[in-house]
Amino acid sequence: MQTLHVELGDRRYPIFIGSDLNPQSLLEPYIHGKQVMIVTNTTVKPLYLDHYISAIERLGKTVATCILPDGEKYKNIEHLNLIFDALLAAGFNRDATVLALGGGVIGDMAGFASACFQRGVYFIQVPTTLLSQVDSSVGGKTGINHPLGKNMIGAFQQPQVVLADMAQLNTLPDRELSAGLAEVIKYALLGDLDFLTWLEANMDGLVGRDATLLAEAVYRSCAHKARIVANDEKEQGERALLNLGHTFGHAIESYLGYGVWLHGEAIATGMVMAADLSQRMGWISLVDVERTKKIIQRAHLPVKCPAIPLDEFLGFMAHDKKVLNGQLRLVLMKSLGQAVISKEFDLELMKQAILTNQEKA
Amino acid sequence: MQTLHVELGDRRYPIFIGSDLNPQSLLEPYIHGKQVMIVTNTTVKPLYLDHYISAIERLGKTVATCILPDGEKYKNIEHLNLIFDALLAAGFNRDATVLALGGGVIGDMAGFASACFQRGVYFIQVPTTLLSQVDSSVGGKTGINHPLGKNMIGAFQQPQVVLADMAQLNTLPDRELSAGLAEVIKYALLGDLDFLTWLEANMDGLVGRDATLLAEAVYRSCAHKARIVANDEKEQGERALLNLGHTFGHAIESYLGYGVWLHGEAIATGMVMAADLSQRMGWISLVDVERTKKIIQRAHLPVKCPAIPLDEFLGFMAHDKKVLNGQLRLVLMKSLGQAVISKEFDLELMKQAILTNQEKA
Repeated sequence: MQTLHVELGDRRYPIFIGSDLNPQSLLEPYIHGKQVMIVTNTTVKPLYLDHYISAIERLGKTVATCILPDGEKYKNIEHLNLIFDALLAAGFNRDATVLALGGGVIGDMAGFASACFQRGVYFIQVPTTLLSQVDSSVGGKTGINHPLGKNMIGAFQQPQVVLADMAQLNTLPDRELSAGLAEVIKYALLGDLDFLTWLEANMDGLVGRDATLLAEAVYRSCAHKARIVANDEKEQGERALLNLGHTFGHAIESYLGYGVWLHGEAIATGMVMAADLSQRMGWISLVDVERTKKIIQRAHLPVKCPAIPLDEFLGFMAHDKKVLNGQLRLVLMKSLGQAVISKEFDLELMKQAILTNQEKA
Repeated sequence: MQTLHVELGDRRYPIFIGSDLNPQSLLEPYIHGKQVMIVTNTTVKPLYLDHYISAIERLGKTVATCILPDGEKYKNIEHLNLIFDALLAAGFNRDATVLALGGGVIGDMAGFASACFQRGVYFIQVPTTLLSQVDSSVGGKTGINHPLGKNMIGAFQQPQVVLADMAQLNTLPDRELSAGLAEVIKYALLGDLDFLTWLEANMDGLVGRDATLLAEAVYRSCAHKARIVANDEKEQGERALLNLGHTFGHAIESYLGYGVWLHGEAIATGMVMAADLSQRMGWISLVDVERTKKIIQRAHLPVKCPAIPLDEFLGFMAHDKKVLNGQLRLVLMKSLGQAVISKEFDLELMKQAILTNQEKA
């Protein structure tokens, strides 16, 4: 087992990364009150819920559960309210802990609920998908979607501890494993050319679910994110680099409707568009773009999105949170493995980058 | 005009207290982006909305509005969502400012919305009731109610600036003026015997809406709260003293249904119950209890609540946020003008204090 600490002063917390982790001993120091609400979904429930209930009850805690339907389309205010209902029906107080057992949607919703319930209770994350292990484990971003935009409502809420268990990835569908690899690739593209080379050497093993390779990929991704977040918790600057591919990706997700494409799939194509625009700006080479596409394809991820009318695509981009004072900022690549935040891009070139990486209508 | 600074490090902000304040000049330094969403209600809208729209538009800002129905019963997740709808429909971004123009309900909802929208945008408060001027202006507590409990969902969100304009109190109904005086009296009872003496000398003038006296009462109340909050922003200790009368009061409000009694009215009777229990514990005298009741009555506030079955009253108290690890903590008075947080009270004496200060069934 490897341990990574996210350095956030008095909110410093550990991420435990390994296989077949023991939740009872690992969680014990991090549950401060007597009440634990496990939030999970209907897919994860039959696989892992009983294991965690037993472990936490053996610690002498009161456990209650809130089972949500599975899917991004339920990441809304109505389903958030079900968590509040469950917390209040159980009579839970300010010293309660909300434990997220599931993927990114569960982590976002349970985390946001824990930030708001009684103006803030404790939060623990047990991410059960590769994407949530590398993305949601670090950073404290929680929230829900709104019909007019993704993640528009939320809070920064840091967990007490994160358990990332590679054994749980064995039950993950192939498509979701690939979606997680999209975020892994993102860390390489935005700031670590060595990691990109490592991924090129090991992508087949990762797709084949080699637990040692997966743990290494999770560790390196989380370490990257932890370093960036420790420097910039509230996303005033450097942290925005983590949104490589996301402004394009969010537009794809919004147009298709949440949940049609997985987040990681949309981000994958979004990264191709970002690379393409970076090349058109003269910052990276065509070879770099091809290398970007190749590693994405080897992770079984899409490099083109369905045909989307350009005005609608741009409309969704304008709703992105990275718009500041009406000015769109994009995360692009100054060189391969080195992302920058830029509002200096050419709008016409951006349109070409979008259109080129779509299926023909 | 008096200015009080709430000292919260890099979130330090001023409260401007006076009559006929000029919003254009006072707000200008505190609106950072280009977009301002004014949240108000149907009662305040015809009185003051146009004045603020004009002032802010003269600053070159884009103004949008969200008009909510008036009343505590609308302080729920459905109406909170209307603010998010308005923000997104207006295309507002992370640099937006949400301005609360109204009483405590509007302040709580607009503040909570500003804390959650895009995981946090700017917030400005223009409290238009005496209660919100002395209570919501300081402390950063925002939130909404849940059918199972008051203020159960929320966030700590500090404003950029607060404008407390005594001229706006001229349109306040008598009953709401009195409800505000309940919180003013609270500051005297919990920590300032001199202020209690001042209130005893000036209560008739306050009830008669003397603007100079009201400004002085608001300044002294806010100064008390600001000092306590600066010491204990997240309510780990001393800040809980501000809940004098609130655990009893919340039970009264919850039983009667939100909005039947005003918050200040419930707190007034709650403070009588707290004083009564403090006397039964041998901490204050019967004369102190009578002095407490007298100043509350002179503010035209109730010293008894309607008959409420004891088991239901206790049930609502058990849902209070001051329950920690299942242990109810009450704010009582060790002496008149000196409140303490105590879990050492006698349950039987507490029941007597509740029953004595109810109407007969």
